[in-house]
Amino acid sequence: MNGLNMSIRLRRTPYTDRIEKLGVSGFSIVNHMLLPKAFQSTVEEDYWHLREHVQIWDVSCQRQVEIQGPDAQRLIQLMTPRNIGDIAIGDCLYIPLIDENAGLINDPVLLKLSEDKYWLSIADSDVLLFAKGLAFGRKLDVKVNEPDVYPLAVQGPKAEKLLTEIFGPHVKNIKFFKFDWIDVNGSSQLIARSGYSRQGGFEIYLKGKAHANFLWDIIWKKGQSYQIAPGCPNLIERIEGGLFSYGNEMTIANNPFEIGLEKFCDLDGPIEYIGKSKLLDIHKNGVQKIIRGFVFGETPCPNCSKPWRVYANGKAVGNITSAIWSPRLKANVAQGMVDKDYWNIGQNVKIEVQDGSEMIGTIKDFPL
Amino acid sequence: MNGLNMSIRLRRTPYTDRIEKLGVSGFSIVNHMLLPKAFQSTVEEDYWHLREHVQIWDVSCQRQVEIQGPDAQRLIQLMTPRNIGDIAIGDCLYIPLIDENAGLINDPVLLKLSEDKYWLSIADSDVLLFAKGLAFGRKLDVKVNEPDVYPLAVQGPKAEKLLTEIFGPHVKNIKFFKFDWIDVNGSSQLIARSGYSRQGGFEIYLKGKAHANFLWDIIWKKGQSYQIAPGCPNLIERIEGGLFSYGNEMTIANNPFEIGLEKFCDLDGPIEYIGKSKLLDIHKNGVQKIIRGFVFGETPCPNCSKPWRVYANGKAVGNITSAIWSPRLKANVAQGMVDKDYWNIGQNVKIEVQDGSEMIGTIKDFPL
Repeated sequence: MNGLNMSIRLRRTPYTDRIEKLGVSGFSIVNHMLLPKAFQSTVEEDYWHLREHVQIWDVSCQRQVEIQGPDAQRLIQLMTPRNIGDIAIGDCLYIPLIDENAGLINDPVLLKLSEDKYWLSIADSDVLLFAKGLAFGRKLDVKVNEPDVYPLAVQGPKAEKLLTEIFGPHVKNIKFFKFDWIDVNGSSQLIARSGYSRQGGFEIYLKGKAHANFLWDIIWKKGQSYQIAPGCPNLIERIEGGLFSYGNEMTIANNPFEIGLEKFCDLDGPIEYIGKSKLLDIHKNGVQKIIRGFVFGETPCPNCSKPWRVYANGKAVGNITSAIWSPRLKANVAQGMVDKDYWNIGQNVKIEVQDGSEMIGTIKDFPL
Repeated sequence: MNGLNMSIRLRRTPYTDRIEKLGVSGFSIVNHMLLPKAFQSTVEEDYWHLREHVQIWDVSCQRQVEIQGPDAQRLIQLMTPRNIGDIAIGDCLYIPLIDENAGLINDPVLLKLSEDKYWLSIADSDVLLFAKGLAFGRKLDVKVNEPDVYPLAVQGPKAEKLLTEIFGPHVKNIKFFKFDWIDVNGSSQLIARSGYSRQGGFEIYLKGKAHANFLWDIIWKKGQSYQIAPGCPNLIERIEGGLFSYGNEMTIANNPFEIGLEKFCDLDGPIEYIGKSKLLDIHKNGVQKIIRGFVFGETPCPNCSKPWRVYANGKAVGNITSAIWSPRLKANVAQGMVDKDYWNIGQNVKIEVQDGSEMIGTIKDFPL
């Protein structure tokens, strides 16, 4: 493994001290902030554990872009093709953001906190700057900033029981992609039933650093009887589950249709948003490639840090962007783009993996 | 050292294969891209080498934001308090960018390529999105994109001789912060006399990946007689030299005056830019803290990955943001913020370093 040279620019989180004590051994960087990615256990061990028990994840790097003011909803609608007209206080909404070419800029979760206050819980790009540019350019009456909010995810099948025990029975009543409030050491904090896994769980959007240790410690302590472990978004689980990652599976070079996000695009309505005419054009003409799942090979593939070419009938027809060995399927699983004529489920493919070797596989539907 | 978990999102560069062969052992992440930060040699060895010989740096992470169209200059002027009215083709201009609160968004180098085409060579934040938001909001007639350009820096006192030998005598005539063109394998490529060190040198803004190996290899081969080595921005050298780093010494929470950038702020002219009224307010009232250099301690300090408190007269008066042992000064050198009443050169300070120990030092002027 290569080293990460630390500096203040790669921002620590209020939980970094705690995860260091728990033996973190590797990080990624998201939104200029540390995302713990490796502990003492293997990705496979973490995978099985996540499917059975409960994990605590430092996902502070899911930065919030706070948009507040009379024009808040107008500004957000400008950034996304999804119609957000019906969002209610307490809702979480997945909203792809696009630019003037209908290229994906981010795919955050939008939270409506009050009539004129929203958070965008973002993937890895500076949505803050996009929103500031738009707000200034359009002379919108909003304030845009990054608040001191540090999301902590509690994921896995035992998450509900654990958090209900700690924060009260109302936690159990929070529906998927809704949020409510809990008391953390005398402070009121936002909790949503959401998270970057398919195993269920919650995200606590802790405001301020003051209560970070308290929150971490109480979950950790009460979690002992649930076999809690430190964790992070699990690559096996997210690939199998069809959870895509901005910067990996999609970039500004991709439009929403290529990522299967058509259901989040309002194409017929009167709402105005950036890139709408371009999006309509693309929709009319159809896309030339689409994201797919893959199952391939009989031995573990290497780590995927550059695109792997996908072949069908001897022709290069796509690229793998994320891949890993699945101990459950006893095969490698992957996500990536495939060209039109070869994107059908069941298509046989050959994949040129990073070490130069070739593996045989099939295009599959999610979940893998 | 902690590990860096690789994924496609942490983009490789066209030179990554080469630097891997040369034994890179650590990276940082800038603009979602790998910046090599450690090789087989120590930071001290690299420091002495950089001051005597020549180094080749993969600084592809200095991404370009290309702004092209009739309104290009207008858009750029909107983003910076520096008056860019006099920029000529072939000029490089350091331009701080600020938001509506006069907070620093980035501090790129602006290159004028033609009357309606510019590049912003950026530090670590998505200026692309800021520019896109502004352009759309203001309905400006420009195209904003990130071109396939991968800067390669050649730094050190022997850089001029080496590059003149390879690319011709006109390289010698390029003045500081000016650019010209060289032939690289039959392609015309931009070369500027610039770079993130005080030892002199050039940056080649290679367009396209096709010639990356050719460029790297010819510099590497011809550089052998100049004792060329792979390198990267050197922490000792940049701290001593007073080169600040966006994300470390300055963030969106800082205004240009706190970073000593007043000379780049047009306060009296008629030009319009974001944050101007706020900037004038701050200027009128004066700042409460400013960036300074520090020399302290008699033994090497630990790596600085969180702010270290600075004390004077028993009072907390500032924070160190970057620090390292200087083998030349036989003391630690640092950069950081100090409050108004304690920012004079010569002020004695006590610094609480990362491992909890305290060190005694003095505020110094740059270069240290």
